[in-house]
Amino acid sequence: MPEFRKDPILGRWVIIATERVRRPKDFRRERPVRRPGPCPLCPGHEEETPPEILAYRDPGQMVPDTPGWRVRVVPSKFPALRIEGELGRRGQGMYDVMNAVGAHEVVIESPDHDRGLGTLSVDATLDVLRAYRDRIADLKRDERFRSVLVFKNHGADAGKTLEHPHSQLIATPVVPLTVSDELHHARAYHDYRERCLFCDMLRQELEEQVRIVVEGERAVAFAPFAARLPYETWILPRRHAALFEQSDDTELVDLAAVLTTVLAKLRVALDDPPYNLVLHSAPFGVGESPAYHWHLEIMPKLAGLAGVELGSGFHINAVPPEDAGRVLRQTSTS
Amino acid sequence: MPEFRKDPILGRWVIIATERVRRPKDFRRERPVRRPGPCPLCPGHEEETPPEILAYRDPGQMVPDTPGWRVRVVPSKFPALRIEGELGRRGQGMYDVMNAVGAHEVVIESPDHDRGLGTLSVDATLDVLRAYRDRIADLKRDERFRSVLVFKNHGADAGKTLEHPHSQLIATPVVPLTVSDELHHARAYHDYRERCLFCDMLRQELEEQVRIVVEGERAVAFAPFAARLPYETWILPRRHAALFEQSDDTELVDLAAVLTTVLAKLRVALDDPPYNLVLHSAPFGVGESPAYHWHLEIMPKLAGLAGVELGSGFHINAVPPEDAGRVLRQTSTS
Repeated sequence: MPEFRKDPILGRWVIIATERVRRPKDFRRERPVRRPGPCPLCPGHEEETPPEILAYRDPGQMVPDTPGWRVRVVPSKFPALRIEGELGRRGQGMYDVMNAVGAHEVVIESPDHDRGLGTLSVDATLDVLRAYRDRIADLKRDERFRSVLVFKNHGADAGKTLEHPHSQLIATPVVPLTVSDELHHARAYHDYRERCLFCDMLRQELEEQVRIVVEGERAVAFAPFAARLPYETWILPRRHAALFEQSDDTELVDLAAVLTTVLAKLRVALDDPPYNLVLHSAPFGVGESPAYHWHLEIMPKLAGLAGVELGSGFHINAVPPEDAGRVLRQTSTS
Repeated sequence: MPEFRKDPILGRWVIIATERVRRPKDFRRERPVRRPGPCPLCPGHEEETPPEILAYRDPGQMVPDTPGWRVRVVPSKFPALRIEGELGRRGQGMYDVMNAVGAHEVVIESPDHDRGLGTLSVDATLDVLRAYRDRIADLKRDERFRSVLVFKNHGADAGKTLEHPHSQLIATPVVPLTVSDELHHARAYHDYRERCLFCDMLRQELEEQVRIVVEGERAVAFAPFAARLPYETWILPRRHAALFEQSDDTELVDLAAVLTTVLAKLRVALDDPPYNLVLHSAPFGVGESPAYHWHLEIMPKLAGLAGVELGSGFHINAVPPEDAGRVLRQTSTS
């Protein structure tokens, strides 16, 4: 059984996959391998994945686990967490452990093996965002879970193992450290100023107009003032909203348009860079907080982390976000 | 002038290198490039680096910036921070900024282009550790600084740009987030238990004997219980000590032996993996705290981060540290 273990010096829960035994030599020649044979995520191969949890289907194509879907969500075939069982919180000497209970799902973004977020139409992108929303709303009903992490790794260097465009959802009984740290700082700011930190940020970005990448009617993309990585880009809804899963379709349509434009600009300006996309939304217990504001973070992986970042939390960014904002703003995608 | 900028939602200071302008195409084919011509860090090329700050030299070879050194410390030729000037803390709208004042130094670990930490003799390794210690002690006298980060990137994938074995020191007016988080948790633990968290950890590891990698007389290496990465290994002094820079030579000799053995075991077991090594020592203002305990963290880069880690702080480790500990313990390096 995989375990959550708490690092006592950082207060961080780590998943230790105690079952997938990997010997030293398994790492020696680790390269993204093109799987032999047809892609298991392509239409016509539905039986190669676990049964679907959710699918948006065209009229007349309503039989589960058959072709005719536009977006399809299935449990991960190699889950990092187990959906069944109790948490079993316990000590092990001075350490803290619990069972790695959670959900690990794969959002297949499109039936087309070569098109995913960034190259899909706005309508098809909307389907992907609706799938995120609907799965979060469903997973939230499981009282064991406190948070859902939605993320996408694009490009081999970003950790992709399956070629077919997909995102992933991980529902966990713990709140990821970055989200709880954000919440902590956002609450401190709100306590002091009685305003949302993210709304203030958005206001300043819209006034200054130097780091803005795209302005939609309901969502805005910009290079954050203290970007950790070159061309890091965030997307926030203009309206204060802590919970992504309460977005309505009108908001998601605009988000789909802004996200598609941002990803197209990154692709054109940076030659289809690998990137990670992560959705940060308020943890389940928090509700519609006046302090928190959901957002998407897009982190291109251009130069590789130097390593000091992981061990220190210390980032050196060689591209001022003002330059990144200007370059992306001026990049034409038509 | 490069800037420190504070990410308000994570409370994290980032260095934004506003001068090294990098255009999008600079990233397109970023690969570690072997410099043409001789290595600027090799003996006989001392004039190609800034003048040395510190060198340990053989008797009769005492002329600075000439050959005859065993370890040599020079300012970085491409510093991320500037040594001169005031911090100039200021606001920029809602954001916080200060000048990126600090020291960025390169520790050339050996005159031999092909030997560095892990392949040097214990005596030569001791010289490198003494250089860390002596440089920290010196930088500590600059009242602008609050912390020195010492780190090494081994292997191209770990972010190395110069081939000649070297480590780096960065002295900053801010405390790296990871160290301040560690300090925070260690103090909370100490407040509750009136014992050092790290001493307790060491005691449990020595009792259980399942994650131990090497036991020295004064330093112990083990795979941490909640390791973020496969084969992550920490080295702690047995004696409670918050400040690395107060280690005496007897302690450093044993640390050199343990570190050399750990790096040799990693090299043999994992086929010379890229790794990052980071020294965590108490920030300058903290002094000889009963709560903090300096340590070395060695993080092999075997599988590449999946990307979700950076955006969430959430790690999935496919190798239980019990397996890593056993494999490394049993790896013979003779």
